[in-house]
Amino acid sequence: MSFNSFGRMLRFTTWGESHGPALGVVIDGCPPGIILREEDIQTALDKRRPGTSKFVTQRKEPDTVKILSGVFEDDRTDGPRTTGTPISLMIENVDQRSKDYSDIRDKYRPGHADFTYDAKYGFRDYRGGGRSSARETAARVAAGVIAEKTLAHVLKSAVWIRASMVQMGPYKIDRGNFDWMNVDKNPFWCADAKAAEDWAEKLDAARKDGSSYGAVIEVVASGAPAGLGAPVYGKLDADLASAMMSINAVKGVEIGAGMEAAALTGEENADEIRMKDGAPHFLSNKAGGVLGGISSGQDIVARFAVKPTSSILTPRRTITARGEETTIQTKGRHDPCVGIRAVPVGIAMMALVLADHALMHRGQCG
Amino acid sequence: MSFNSFGRMLRFTTWGESHGPALGVVIDGCPPGIILREEDIQTALDKRRPGTSKFVTQRKEPDTVKILSGVFEDDRTDGPRTTGTPISLMIENVDQRSKDYSDIRDKYRPGHADFTYDAKYGFRDYRGGGRSSARETAARVAAGVIAEKTLAHVLKSAVWIRASMVQMGPYKIDRGNFDWMNVDKNPFWCADAKAAEDWAEKLDAARKDGSSYGAVIEVVASGAPAGLGAPVYGKLDADLASAMMSINAVKGVEIGAGMEAAALTGEENADEIRMKDGAPHFLSNKAGGVLGGISSGQDIVARFAVKPTSSILTPRRTITARGEETTIQTKGRHDPCVGIRAVPVGIAMMALVLADHALMHRGQCG
Amino acid sequence: MSFNSFGRMLRFTTWGESHGPALGVVIDGCPPGIILREEDIQTALDKRRPGTSKFVTQRKEPDTVKILSGVFEDDRTDGPRTTGTPISLMIENVDQRSKDYSDIRDKYRPGHADFTYDAKYGFRDYRGGGRSSARETAARVAAGVIAEKTLAHVLKSAVWIRASMVQMGPYKIDRGNFDWMNVDKNPFWCADAKAAEDWAEKLDAARKDGSSYGAVIEVVASGAPAGLGAPVYGKLDADLASAMMSINAVKGVEIGAGMEAAALTGEENADEIRMKDGAPHFLSNKAGGVLGGISSGQDIVARFAVKPTSSILTPRRTITARGEETTIQTKGRHDPCVGIRAVPVGIAMMALVLADHALMHRGQCG
Amino acid sequence: MSFNSFGRMLRFTTWGESHGPALGVVIDGCPPGIILREEDIQTALDKRRPGTSKFVTQRKEPDTVKILSGVFEDDRTDGPRTTGTPISLMIENVDQRSKDYSDIRDKYRPGHADFTYDAKYGFRDYRGGGRSSARETAARVAAGVIAEKTLAHVLKSAVWIRASMVQMGPYKIDRGNFDWMNVDKNPFWCADAKAAEDWAEKLDAARKDGSSYGAVIEVVASGAPAGLGAPVYGKLDADLASAMMSINAVKGVEIGAGMEAAALTGEENADEIRMKDGAPHFLSNKAGGVLGGISSGQDIVARFAVKPTSSILTPRRTITARGEETTIQTKGRHDPCVGIRAVPVGIAMMALVLADHALMHRGQCG
Repeated sequence: MSFNSFGRMLRFTTWGESHGPALGVVIDGCPPGIILREEDIQTALDKRRPGTSKFVTQRKEPDTVKILSGVFEDDRTDGPRTTGTPISLMIENVDQRSKDYSDIRDKYRPGHADFTYDAKYGFRDYRGGGRSSARETAARVAAGVIAEKTLAHVLKSAVWIRASMVQMGPYKIDRGNFDWMNVDKNPFWCADAKAAEDWAEKLDAARKDGSSYGAVIEVVASGAPAGLGAPVYGKLDADLASAMMSINAVKGVEIGAGMEAAALTGEENADEIRMKDGAPHFLSNKAGGVLGGISSGQDIVARFAVKPTSSILTPRRTITARGEETTIQTKGRHDPCVGIRAVPVGIAMMALVLADHALMHRGQCG
Repeated sequence: MSFNSFGRMLRFTTWGESHGPALGVVIDGCPPGIILREEDIQTALDKRRPGTSKFVTQRKEPDTVKILSGVFEDDRTDGPRTTGTPISLMIENVDQRSKDYSDIRDKYRPGHADFTYDAKYGFRDYRGGGRSSARETAARVAAGVIAEKTLAHVLKSAVWIRASMVQMGPYKIDRGNFDWMNVDKNPFWCADAKAAEDWAEKLDAARKDGSSYGAVIEVVASGAPAGLGAPVYGKLDADLASAMMSINAVKGVEIGAGMEAAALTGEENADEIRMKDGAPHFLSNKAGGVLGGISSGQDIVARFAVKPTSSILTPRRTITARGEETTIQTKGRHDPCVGIRAVPVGIAMMALVLADHALMHRGQCG
Repeated sequence: MSFNSFGRMLRFTTWGESHGPALGVVIDGCPPGIILREEDIQTALDKRRPGTSKFVTQRKEPDTVKILSGVFEDDRTDGPRTTGTPISLMIENVDQRSKDYSDIRDKYRPGHADFTYDAKYGFRDYRGGGRSSARETAARVAAGVIAEKTLAHVLKSAVWIRASMVQMGPYKIDRGNFDWMNVDKNPFWCADAKAAEDWAEKLDAARKDGSSYGAVIEVVASGAPAGLGAPVYGKLDADLASAMMSINAVKGVEIGAGMEAAALTGEENADEIRMKDGAPHFLSNKAGGVLGGISSGQDIVARFAVKPTSSILTPRRTITARGEETTIQTKGRHDPCVGIRAVPVGIAMMALVLADHALMHRGQCG
Repeated sequence: MSFNSFGRMLRFTTWGESHGPALGVVIDGCPPGIILREEDIQTALDKRRPGTSKFVTQRKEPDTVKILSGVFEDDRTDGPRTTGTPISLMIENVDQRSKDYSDIRDKYRPGHADFTYDAKYGFRDYRGGGRSSARETAARVAAGVIAEKTLAHVLKSAVWIRASMVQMGPYKIDRGNFDWMNVDKNPFWCADAKAAEDWAEKLDAARKDGSSYGAVIEVVASGAPAGLGAPVYGKLDADLASAMMSINAVKGVEIGAGMEAAALTGEENADEIRMKDGAPHFLSNKAGGVLGGISSGQDIVARFAVKPTSSILTPRRTITARGEETTIQTKGRHDPCVGIRAVPVGIAMMALVLADHALMHRGQCG
């Protein structure tokens, strides 16, 4: 079973609640001999860390990662290297603000998992959302670094995985402005600098109003070879769909043309193929780099929609655990657009799916 | 590993190629004591069978299912009952038309998996698409019947799983006309009778032109209790995303508000809760019945987009397996809108995911 | 879950009951490009087939195997080759003698699974033992052929897997007489020709008395490289233990020195290492070729004990399904030493475990 | 994949090396609502802790366990309770003696996994055996406590799992002296007080000689109901075989009569059944409580053989990693009979297998 695990050959299992002492992940199946330092992981974690701009939660978490196993260094190695055994990573929770939780203890916050966790388990760790909190995604980002290294190691060439927010609320980017160089230069990881500026204003207004916006994130992997994936239930795109939909607050996943594919004709949709420099060359990429569940060598393009943050200042009607009608209003720190912090998580999930398939492909097909 | 398997506790494994002697599925983990007759499965298969209207492939396949194991009847039982051991179902291929495959043997059809299967495996069973053919979905529909029975057996109450095509090409239904009573009365399984009439004309024209249309299908499960699902990677919606994306030609999956959720504000998106007849009652269903990966007791709503059939009469540019530029034109029978035949498959996948989670929930939570 | 599946990357799922229409196996994860003909499998099945000597059940089953998927041949291949997709094998049951089952329908045969299947599932397919029948092992032998081919394909060199019965009832072979050349020359697959002669007499007597004998089978894989296996729960020997214990009627499994290892001193037990022809050379093989769960390059040696056939002519005390005390006496055909037919099954299971680990090793370690 | 995981519904994943900063385990699938305190786990860990008698390693490890997730307590619960989410346990390594490892860094210790880990992974964490060290079993014992609680919770009745060493080196216990009351009163966890006295003398002598002894451990579960297990590859005894063989240094596993079953006649082996107090009552237990892979309600009896400690003072011939012939002599602390510390590990593994099957049975059969 895999309630809290993901992947087949590169398998990771996360654990931890928002307000427990720590959270972490165990990665099993990583090949031996890969250089892995805590700093490599820390750099990625710092990017998704809370409190980095006014648009993300103000919780102060240093998110310092420790490698507890699976890596070894001695005076004969040129750095710490993976040993092929499970890699255990831990991140201690520091800022579990000792606030009063009596409100969300008894009331079900609309749009949150409070009601469903109680329905399933009979009770729940309500502090900060417990296991359903987006804090779990720190573990994914950490694991994603190992996945990216694994992928490069197995393929013997780098795969460049990047992501951009392409829509905030109803506001989409202008594809004409798309430039990957922009994504590190604005708080939205947005490839359209102009859109990012516009969004900043709009999100600031929403934040002040106590409202929130959703988002669409696009993740693109460039340089993955043709042949990754498997037929039917092991399809690369089925795994990507599962991976992206498992991210908190995601309600839709698209590959290539996505939902829009339905509106195309067969002529428009099927990407034609020519030769270029002695290699197959597709004239378009409606398929998003996946045909029959197997990568085509084109860019692999996945998109996912994140719903607007459910924690808003406007009072909402709800019920208590005892079935009484009431209202609830979220106070305190929150992300006006949780989609922002989902960007590095999308990169991590793409890396994990690709690394997993790269290992499986090498296993089955040599 | 699960290249060709799906599910955890109710696990099914399909096998078979489009033009092999047969195809089938093994279902493991089905509870004992459920009445199961070949007719029950046949009825569902007859619905998705090729050749039932001019809008689906004219291949003549009776799709007769045989139960080869896992069911037992004697004079003391009131019918054949599942025994708790693996149920093996087989459907023989009959109409593997002995056509000339030399064209698709050597040329990669744009939009098909020809190129990627060769890239992965070095060679392929090209007859009718081999393993990548939608004929595999017959096995899913058969397994879906067992899943629906399992679900009702475990929950001790029926879950009503229905599906409607809600968009054909660029043409969407009118939600005001939506009536489940209509779905069995038109070749599109469409809940909007008027849209179906309109589509019939449009698809007929496209068919004559040798073109094709995509589609969006909506699958709705009514009556599932709150509490099915699991946190993080075992999320009900993550499993649904994987299930739907694993269907041939699917490029996007949505839960509830789906991709549109990105454009909503927090106020619009979070479904408020009241009490009604002593039970929790949600005032809207943007969540599509899933919160934090766990069912809320509302209707579970999944949608998926099917790309237009790639086999079209218009010649398309492509290459051969030897890397020569050429063109290809699909001759012979094909579906102008493969989305039509995906409708019962969507129902089956919803049933399989729900039954799997119902068994897991009973296992973990009693 | 894997109630009826085995293996990770080379995963097989068996189905079928003793007296159903057929039994079979689906093998998933087999590499593409391996020549596979029905005759290859048939040859192995013929060896374990019922009715080949007076010491095995007289049920007449041709055990004809059909390959239903996963293999493709055209005029450009030099034979049918695996495609990398699931291989489905089916063996039809022919001699389901229409005997009267009323006796075993109501009474629990001591030593059989009648009581426990009823306890678990509430009822059972009692005909010939249903799913608990050793007929299931035909599927394993068939799958084992594919495993042996996979192993040679992945390792690019043959691994020679052989087995010998080394004990029948209380009578052990003389290791001084051990010669693999003998195993195909007697009905016991015994490497000690003299012991086999002796056993034939003793088993004939037991058969006439309506009694039965147990057996110990030794399976040896020669030529497997060092490095197959994994730490802790993926240990090669843990998988072999599971594999062998899953064979019907097996009650003990040993690797190398086995249970006797307990009686050795540390000096006697730890196999010393020297160099020979430029390669590591172990001076003994108490470890049975596995250290820390990983193969050492020595012969991999597994042994398992099969209990005596529980179906005997002597009446035994038992109860009915309704809880009445009674006696039961097995009539009709049976194997006086089921261990005989377990010999090829042991070979198959060794092949399956090694092939699985060879694929996983290639996947993880390249 | 499950290189470092075990179990299906109650699935645990261990991580950590002998001389890394910590080791631990993540348990997924535990039912919600079970009282779980650190003390409960600590008590079990204290039993297997190093340094408790002169017969076990003198390494000083407090083995203090921390619960990092999956448990929640507030003023309304009567103690910390499991939440149904992953439980992460960590034990910090304290006494990683900064000894000189140059000897075992370069030389392969006979009987150890040094050679095979290098063969598999190219290099290894050699400090104290790294991942192949028996320190990993602390994580199993910790997880075993949760398994025992899960088992009692699911079955709504206690299952009593006990173990005794029944053989040390060539010296077996006298079954006539067997009394479970003795196991906590001697350093061998031996149910025969007289044998334990005798063993103490013999092991002391071996220890002084720098030699070591193997052992046989018997684990018995009393009170488990009939019906746990599954056919074929999910057999309860196949899982027990895998579980016990996965313990460090184990070379043989037996269920019930075990290897001796081979020497019995059919009459002797098949346990007859009578009624007693209105319930089925077996007159003997050669089957060890498992028939056809499913529990019969009798005591479940598993035995496993542990080879003698490979680390001995006597110099042994071996090679270096560079292929030079040399000798090695183990200095410093070691266990003269590692079997002693395997006793609580056997209990833990029995608990994990039974709890897993209890959850699966409830899932599939209600």
